[in-house]
Amino acid sequence: MPQPTKVEVINFGDELLVGIRENAHLTYLGEQLARYGLPIHRARIITDDLNEIKNAFSDAWAHSDLVITTGGLGPTADDMTRESIAEALGAELVFDPSIEIVIQERFKVMGRTMAAHHKKQCYRFKDGQVLRNDRGTAPGLYYEAEGKCLIMLPGPTHELQPIFEKQVLPLLQEKEVLSDQEAYLQLRTCGSGESTIEQLMQPIINAHAELTVAYCVHYGIVDVRLSSRDASLNWEQLQSIGQEAREVLGDDFVCFGHCSLAKVVFHELRALDRTLAVAESCTGGSLADAFTNIAGASKVFAGGVVCYTNDVKMDILGVPECLLDQHGAVSSECAVALASGVAERFSTDYGLSVTGFAGPGGGDEANPVGTIHLGYHSPVGVWCKTVRYTGGRLDVKARAVHAALDWMRRKLKKYKMEEMLCCGGKD
Amino acid sequence: MPQPTKVEVINFGDELLVGIRENAHLTYLGEQLARYGLPIHRARIITDDLNEIKNAFSDAWAHSDLVITTGGLGPTADDMTRESIAEALGAELVFDPSIEIVIQERFKVMGRTMAAHHKKQCYRFKDGQVLRNDRGTAPGLYYEAEGKCLIMLPGPTHELQPIFEKQVLPLLQEKEVLSDQEAYLQLRTCGSGESTIEQLMQPIINAHAELTVAYCVHYGIVDVRLSSRDASLNWEQLQSIGQEAREVLGDDFVCFGHCSLAKVVFHELRALDRTLAVAESCTGGSLADAFTNIAGASKVFAGGVVCYTNDVKMDILGVPECLLDQHGAVSSECAVALASGVAERFSTDYGLSVTGFAGPGGGDEANPVGTIHLGYHSPVGVWCKTVRYTGGRLDVKARAVHAALDWMRRKLKKYKMEEMLCCGGKD
Repeated sequence: MPQPTKVEVINFGDELLVGIRENAHLTYLGEQLARYGLPIHRARIITDDLNEIKNAFSDAWAHSDLVITTGGLGPTADDMTRESIAEALGAELVFDPSIEIVIQERFKVMGRTMAAHHKKQCYRFKDGQVLRNDRGTAPGLYYEAEGKCLIMLPGPTHELQPIFEKQVLPLLQEKEVLSDQEAYLQLRTCGSGESTIEQLMQPIINAHAELTVAYCVHYGIVDVRLSSRDASLNWEQLQSIGQEAREVLGDDFVCFGHCSLAKVVFHELRALDRTLAVAESCTGGSLADAFTNIAGASKVFAGGVVCYTNDVKMDILGVPECLLDQHGAVSSECAVALASGVAERFSTDYGLSVTGFAGPGGGDEANPVGTIHLGYHSPVGVWCKTVRYTGGRLDVKARAVHAALDWMRRKLKKYKMEEMLCCGGKD
Repeated sequence: MPQPTKVEVINFGDELLVGIRENAHLTYLGEQLARYGLPIHRARIITDDLNEIKNAFSDAWAHSDLVITTGGLGPTADDMTRESIAEALGAELVFDPSIEIVIQERFKVMGRTMAAHHKKQCYRFKDGQVLRNDRGTAPGLYYEAEGKCLIMLPGPTHELQPIFEKQVLPLLQEKEVLSDQEAYLQLRTCGSGESTIEQLMQPIINAHAELTVAYCVHYGIVDVRLSSRDASLNWEQLQSIGQEAREVLGDDFVCFGHCSLAKVVFHELRALDRTLAVAESCTGGSLADAFTNIAGASKVFAGGVVCYTNDVKMDILGVPECLLDQHGAVSSECAVALASGVAERFSTDYGLSVTGFAGPGGGDEANPVGTIHLGYHSPVGVWCKTVRYTGGRLDVKARAVHAALDWMRRKLKKYKMEEMLCCGGKD
């Protein structure tokens, strides 16, 4: 199957259509496939209805070269996806005793017996392969026909992802459907809007006719993805254009690639051999969460305090009562006291704090809902900054976390020399 | 346009296909529409390609009665969605000076001037309506033809949601496309797997032939949605079946409706007029985050400590060094000390704690990766519990948060009488 290949993903599961769960599978598969040069062309989310499954699958199979499905392989009676797709393909499903043995083993380890309804998970396509599932009962399925591939993956994330990485990626690379080289160069930016970044990039776009530029925006981050149609630019040329872009993007440039803002800050602090603690009011734990999503975070990140009440701000972080009386909890003064307080109490080199009104309640004339004060305590100084966002409570929380991280990133960059000198004097 | 109506959602935006962002719009629209009796039938995510947009839209328009699109209305040159769809419909776009005035006003308030590229956002369908956007530049668009409706919404969440709630919902209810009564009865459960819940529900399903039951699973929660085909059961009958279901589900029953576990715990504590603080190691802020996502959380939730290092556990929460030496930070003993420590330091009635190995690193023979110890401190006693999960770091974090909340919910229910008596004795 030569490139270019059209890829379509079909996600089964009513929970994706009725507001129960976000479609994390599509995000995951899209990132994995795009990275190796095969962006998903189209995705559908289909209701658990036999006719709908058959029609959608037939249409996808007719118009795509690679179809990946997620979900619908469970043991319950309403999971008829396997059977409907086999019917649409005109392919036969056969009972595979080797799958049954694996499932029985799995239950045995857990000290249980395999229930009868798991029998339906032991079927595979007659001329197809089984993608072994080490984390759950339903194996993935692989089937090839008419020069096309079908990959069916189980719904639970912790089952789907290992199967995809350990079995599907190598299989597709072996068949030369996927490249083993990354396909685009990404510059992550933060601080300016999409249109500003587009304007900054314009001279570079004008200078390179073969260049394709795509922008992706998420909570204050704008990603710039550089590639070329028909691979007319090689990787070295893309990298050199990437360096030009880095220059014009200035301080908005965060990193090449996909690093989270928290990870960029984490790496900076790791390089300086320094530690951090956070104090958060309105972001309520999500700033700490951003750091603790990094495996090995504890090398830098000591922890944090979610200080939702004034008592906690005073008792745990030592914010003076008179400061709260005079300036209020949502103030630059309080933000600075929180940052310094948490650094002192946690014995860390740096402290980062967020206090504000995430809404919908709270807010006053000076600090309307969406007003966020940031505080930053470092070995070379103490700063505060105020930002303001519109949007719902969860939006404001997410924007505030990115604002705090991006601000700290810029400060670390600006005072790098001073911080390194401070480091030299540590202990 | 009479019911039943087929609804299709088309999400534009390469970022949804290449792993940049989860499709929160589909989750939001699905929840809103399903609640009022019009579940989304099908959804597609389409790449930013003019032909692809035209083809997908034409297919959706041919097979559905209501098509809702998100994204693609931005001012940048690659946003050609409006134009492509107009072409597919054979409909004319006209420049609307009243839109331009609104956009100009918006920039004026921000002390800026409207850039020329925003002109393209001032077009609407010739016989269509404008859905005013108070939070951004691109308005939504409404168009009717052939007895079908098209609704185009801008991509940013904080723009899309107010337009949908303030303008689209009332419009669709006025046209009797949506009901103003809720369409299904949901029972939220936690603690058992989908197949167990299905087995518990079987006698009820057998007893009511008209009943339709759907299950939705997310991180240890299983939602049971009761409805009936063709509305053959009225709301009172559904409620009475819901009560039967509640009985058979026993302690796994969390609530009717969509309340988060954190909100259920919040309401219980609010009713008791009691306060809570949390201490978390491996969940790193996401337990606190679950509470602070509730507007008005501060009435119950004082805050928490993310205690990533042993120093923080000792210095901030008073865990004895000898306890850490003897049992380690990942132990039931430490979990209890954290729960009691945070309740004491934060002067709250309750303390809830989580410590464990979320992976991929860490873990030992006694506590392999995925082992989570929970601690609970209440006015009537102190408890610990150990759970174990497979899955990636983020999965384990999410499961651990739900496990802690569900455990606290059960304890609060079990000791309600004792807690109320304690309450009586408060101060």
